[in-house]
Amino acid sequence: MKCNDVPDIVIARLPVYIQTLNQLLREGKSVISSTELGDRLSMTPSQIRRDLSYFGGFGKKGTGYDIIWLMESLRDILNLNQIWRMLLVGVGHVGQALLNYDGLSRKGFEITAAFDESPKIIGKRFGGLEVKSMAHLEDEIQLNQVKIAAITVPAESAQAVCDRLINCGIQAILNYAPVSLEVPPGVQVSKIDPVLKLQKMTYYLD
Amino acid sequence: MKCNDVPDIVIARLPVYIQTLNQLLREGKSVISSTELGDRLSMTPSQIRRDLSYFGGFGKKGTGYDIIWLMESLRDILNLNQIWRMLLVGVGHVGQALLNYDGLSRKGFEITAAFDESPKIIGKRFGGLEVKSMAHLEDEIQLNQVKIAAITVPAESAQAVCDRLINCGIQAILNYAPVSLEVPPGVQVSKIDPVLKLQKMTYYLD
Repeated sequence: MKCNDVPDIVIARLPVYIQTLNQLLREGKSVISSTELGDRLSMTPSQIRRDLSYFGGFGKKGTGYDIIWLMESLRDILNLNQIWRMLLVGVGHVGQALLNYDGLSRKGFEITAAFDESPKIIGKRFGGLEVKSMAHLEDEIQLNQVKIAAITVPAESAQAVCDRLINCGIQAILNYAPVSLEVPPGVQVSKIDPVLKLQKMTYYLD
Repeated sequence: MKCNDVPDIVIARLPVYIQTLNQLLREGKSVISSTELGDRLSMTPSQIRRDLSYFGGFGKKGTGYDIIWLMESLRDILNLNQIWRMLLVGVGHVGQALLNYDGLSRKGFEITAAFDESPKIIGKRFGGLEVKSMAHLEDEIQLNQVKIAAITVPAESAQAVCDRLINCGIQAILNYAPVSLEVPPGVQVSKIDPVLKLQKMTYYLD
């Protein structure tokens, strides 16, 4: 299914398509045209058709997309038909919120271990998980063959944590620290930073 | 300064430039070429020059960009030379993490009021703010002329909260609920959803 010619920005839109198709299903719809889907997503129908054409196209002209089938196909393309284990480093306010967020496991992402370096935090439980010492990080990754990690440490320590994670085989990082991480080719990083989103929106405010 | 011909995706990159320029300053640099900046951001130098050319261009050929001047110009373009008040609706785990996150106020975004509808939460304090009842939402927005809000309520209530916020004049929404909000033209919405980021990265994992 994987095709390396697909632009990254197209891949990034597929989860948004899945989320919207899910909403449409809950509203009782079973078929949708690219025009209707475009309205929901503030995109043009031709942009949607072009995105989907990277994967062979999913609709017959004039009949629209079968929502369940399209959703399942996109899930397949994104390797979502499995449970992905992940771990989390840094159990401050943001880390705790993530450990308590059931939306991750409902969508197939299960945090199986959480780490911190503070003796005040190690041993405490959040969202059912006992926080472990950073000393066990390497063992945990190798034992459980985890490929995904969330970094929720302060900015100053993020790059060092990132390097350690990648050294033991982590291939995808969800970065909550407000810094750009440097990673070798082939390692995925996604940034979550409310400030970057806010700073973009203020452009449009008077 | 505002130019409506600039693609949204270019505007979205400006905060990332500012963040990276800030990092470079802390590393002791004062001038940077588009090639070096591109390396940091995994972008081509020509893409960076094209982005900046929307605003008149900032470098002389061969001499690189003056980091402080470029950063200040970008801050000016994004209207960041002021304190932006914002409010927050929904004081669960994510809302509490945001209220306790000092990175917002350090970057000029000050949460001045937080709302919840649960009697168990109303009256409690997080990050120095006392949580107010949703009944006071409209008064607060009109009194303080707030333009930005963060929505940190569950998915089911997000659209209703969004409608109420927009009705009283909110123009920019940071949406943490895992749904696509429908808003009238002119209202900005930025989504923060770890699941969408994770679902994109798994495409690249074996």
